[in-house]
Amino acid sequence: MIIQPILDLVAICAKKGIENVILSPGSRCAPLTLAFARHPDIHSRTISDERSAAFIALGMAQQLGQPVALVCTSGSAALNYYPAIAEAFFQRVPLLILTADRPPEWIDQWDGQTIYQEDVFGKHVKKSFRFPDTFAFEEQVWHAGRIANEAINLAKQFPAGPVHINIPLREPFYPAEGEKFEFPEHPREFTPVSSHSQLTEESLKHIKNRLSEVKRLLIVPGQQRPNAQIQKLLDQLASRQNVVVVSDTISNLQSEHTITLHDHWLGRESLHAELAPDMVISFGQSVISKSLKQFLRKSTASHWHIQSDGQSRDTFQHLTRILPTNPTEFLAWLGENLREQDQDFSQNWKNLEQKTAAALPTVLESSDFGEYPALHFLLKKIPAESKLHLANSMAVRYVNLLGMRPQEIICNRGTSGIDGSNSTAVGCTFTTKDPVTLLTGDMAFFYDRNAFWHNYALPNLRIVLLNNHAGGIFRLIDGPAKQPELEEFFETRQKLNASHLAQEFGFGYSLAKNQAELQIALKDFYEPSLFPKILEIETASPKNAEILKLVKERVKSSTVD
Amino acid sequence: MIIQPILDLVAICAKKGIENVILSPGSRCAPLTLAFARHPDIHSRTISDERSAAFIALGMAQQLGQPVALVCTSGSAALNYYPAIAEAFFQRVPLLILTADRPPEWIDQWDGQTIYQEDVFGKHVKKSFRFPDTFAFEEQVWHAGRIANEAINLAKQFPAGPVHINIPLREPFYPAEGEKFEFPEHPREFTPVSSHSQLTEESLKHIKNRLSEVKRLLIVPGQQRPNAQIQKLLDQLASRQNVVVVSDTISNLQSEHTITLHDHWLGRESLHAELAPDMVISFGQSVISKSLKQFLRKSTASHWHIQSDGQSRDTFQHLTRILPTNPTEFLAWLGENLREQDQDFSQNWKNLEQKTAAALPTVLESSDFGEYPALHFLLKKIPAESKLHLANSMAVRYVNLLGMRPQEIICNRGTSGIDGSNSTAVGCTFTTKDPVTLLTGDMAFFYDRNAFWHNYALPNLRIVLLNNHAGGIFRLIDGPAKQPELEEFFETRQKLNASHLAQEFGFGYSLAKNQAELQIALKDFYEPSLFPKILEIETASPKNAEILKLVKERVKSSTVD
Repeated sequence: MIIQPILDLVAICAKKGIENVILSPGSRCAPLTLAFARHPDIHSRTISDERSAAFIALGMAQQLGQPVALVCTSGSAALNYYPAIAEAFFQRVPLLILTADRPPEWIDQWDGQTIYQEDVFGKHVKKSFRFPDTFAFEEQVWHAGRIANEAINLAKQFPAGPVHINIPLREPFYPAEGEKFEFPEHPREFTPVSSHSQLTEESLKHIKNRLSEVKRLLIVPGQQRPNAQIQKLLDQLASRQNVVVVSDTISNLQSEHTITLHDHWLGRESLHAELAPDMVISFGQSVISKSLKQFLRKSTASHWHIQSDGQSRDTFQHLTRILPTNPTEFLAWLGENLREQDQDFSQNWKNLEQKTAAALPTVLESSDFGEYPALHFLLKKIPAESKLHLANSMAVRYVNLLGMRPQEIICNRGTSGIDGSNSTAVGCTFTTKDPVTLLTGDMAFFYDRNAFWHNYALPNLRIVLLNNHAGGIFRLIDGPAKQPELEEFFETRQKLNASHLAQEFGFGYSLAKNQAELQIALKDFYEPSLFPKILEIETASPKNAEILKLVKERVKSSTVD
Repeated sequence: MIIQPILDLVAICAKKGIENVILSPGSRCAPLTLAFARHPDIHSRTISDERSAAFIALGMAQQLGQPVALVCTSGSAALNYYPAIAEAFFQRVPLLILTADRPPEWIDQWDGQTIYQEDVFGKHVKKSFRFPDTFAFEEQVWHAGRIANEAINLAKQFPAGPVHINIPLREPFYPAEGEKFEFPEHPREFTPVSSHSQLTEESLKHIKNRLSEVKRLLIVPGQQRPNAQIQKLLDQLASRQNVVVVSDTISNLQSEHTITLHDHWLGRESLHAELAPDMVISFGQSVISKSLKQFLRKSTASHWHIQSDGQSRDTFQHLTRILPTNPTEFLAWLGENLREQDQDFSQNWKNLEQKTAAALPTVLESSDFGEYPALHFLLKKIPAESKLHLANSMAVRYVNLLGMRPQEIICNRGTSGIDGSNSTAVGCTFTTKDPVTLLTGDMAFFYDRNAFWHNYALPNLRIVLLNNHAGGIFRLIDGPAKQPELEEFFETRQKLNASHLAQEFGFGYSLAKNQAELQIALKDFYEPSLFPKILEIETASPKNAEILKLVKERVKSSTVD
């Protein structure tokens, strides 16, 4: 018999908007598996490698903005979830993690598939709940229902994130013959009504006062999803009030009014005086540009961060105020209350942006073949409606160097790992019929190849694989590049290319080792197909390092007066 | 400049017997990477997927009986170690886990590749140390050296296990040009001298008294490495004193004097009266046979467990005494002090063992082709000197059903996961020139295929892959087998076979779908080669279920008088 509190839990999930679950096979979790698989309003998928399963759930939840549930069996299964859970925690993606467990009396008794699952995700979940293991009293049923509500509410509440329920289960794990599952039509449910935090009139007065002294306002949006309303407000602030908006690719707030090519020149200290802001306002999460972070850390400007729960991070080391409101509201207020900023300041940034924008294509188009020019060419061919998932570490850096993109950019910058890019992109394809383009390097790609080990078709997935047979980034940093251990212990030369993988999983495959092959390969890359396609761009790591250096020099000489 | 305490740490590792390190690439960990790579007495290998890296280290440490060090960079890298760390913890394998971290002031500041690494392995390490992040005071240098000593001592101390040192590192991560590493010749070192726990004369008197009442003594060795001395003592107890020794395959203590085929009949309650012991003595760790565990849980016999630190687990629910000594010593004493046990008791077990041993080969040799008869045939062809790594879950169960093996059996029964069998076997091959045979199912095999993603030759690795394109175990359990969700959500049908993988990694490959092909494939399977070989045995999951049932029935009818 399957215990009713498990059916209630799944009914509450459905009632509270969870429409998807990723199951991983196991016997201890069978009651959960069966309850999810049989619930009419929840879509169940099964993924065998729990590491991939969790990243796939993350990739779905990123897009859906709703928690995706994860179900695994007892033992080390849950530990394989952990990399994706940490990513979800720092990236603020809602997940509901349901781990089946042995009842407490059987933990650590040499009886197989048990670990210490309670609180196993430590500080990387918003909370970890312990589901009752006995239902001898009515209060225990109430407790189970309360946990389900609290957990899902918490996962969704800003900042969203992963929440864990550890669920001890006793045999039998399977329903008796002829047993019917009765999901409650109206499970007990409690949900916070929507609300938001507003700045008081007094705060706004102080802020207005303080802003009246500001002449060189810089706005830095951190990682977030596209937001047309915020984009419009930023564009107005930039065009009407000479505010400088510096938007990394992962901010999804790039436009012709924002600065996007800053990584080419912000590292030059000689420029810092003319670019120096007297106030920095940020919102969203991390930025990718190291030169931007270093520029702001050296700056003496005050830094305000907008975040509705009043929390923040002191990324630029000059945080002075936290504005507990939402960015849309504050930026709208700013549009009405900020006086026009110093035009020279704004113009200095624009000049550099424009010069770079003019020089970069020419420089890249006259370059030898390599990752950087190949990407410059290729990015223009990606349909605007494609989601563009960028793997760590070089893929996202190249794209950030290449400026404004019309696509939604997705990148696991919560922990910045290479461990789940494929799976996250696969999760994304489960949420859309638009193309999903994964742009990745060979280390990230092969690391997470189990992303493809399941029975779901991924017709809209397109993979661009930058294969330099190594962690090419290490050759691009001075430190490791000079060590005799570079190839063995840093780059970690690896021989694979993706042709075997493509054959094994029935993916389309083409290989480009030069510009002509790249052009041919791209011709029908986005034509509809029944299967994913891989475009492998094979280059040499030393050549890529050389090109990156050369492009940097040439762009520099074009932007120095 | 590389800070001296890092060089000291590596020198202390070498001094204290750590001869191997598995590195994973990263920049934050570069000081550790370089120090290990340049130390003359430590063998460094690099593995990119940290999940595999940690299981490889586990596989080495299992064999070496010495800690193997692991080095990874900051962020989610450490989380990928976690499944192997939990396995090492419960299996009591010594590991020294060195995770590079950002200095504390930069944790959770949206600055990339940071998570909360302190204590991240929770209860699954013996201890987690925090390496100093500053060396402004002499005490901090002393602290660092003390941590290195304490951590390695603790990892080795019974019960051995994983110990974690989290190491915050600041830039620069790379040595200056021309910088020489100076490893101290005599780093400060403190190590416990060897000791052991002995039972007092008084305890032994009590024990002797108690044992004088015992007529039906059953000894159950749990998982451990082969031990000729213990084997001899057990054989003597069995042959001279009519003690019954029931030894699962993972005990590595099977002989012609021990019971090894118990899984065939111990589930039959009608036999329990004649097999009932009046005392159970165990040592080592887990047993695999579920029927043995259930038999002992139903028994009313007292249970004593031998473990030198006085700790134990109540696996059989009747633990009454813990004997804080080592098994060799106690079994030797037992040989001298235990009176002869009831011959009928011993004979009842032997009769069943002998009847099963007589019936089983005939039954299997007349069976249709399937995993079970294929293994019966194949196991006899594995050289006695081969290490035999058994994956969870069916591989180890089949071998346990098939009785005595001359090979050392290795199996991850700490957490009983499928997540790292390949890697653990790869780790084993790094420690021996003898053949290493990995016997695995398709789920475990493809789950952990990154075990092979590195640049090390594995000429002595032989893989026998039982591919039924599913988690076949689920069809062998009544519960899931009866659910309509069996194939999709439990077995999780998967299409792959290993031919692509073999081609991709340059492994030898042969496929056997019937007995004739199996015989041909085995002919030169153990011939020396430059590369690993895969023998894939492809069978149908429903057929395997049918055979298992049929063999069970036939063996039963042969063992019932």
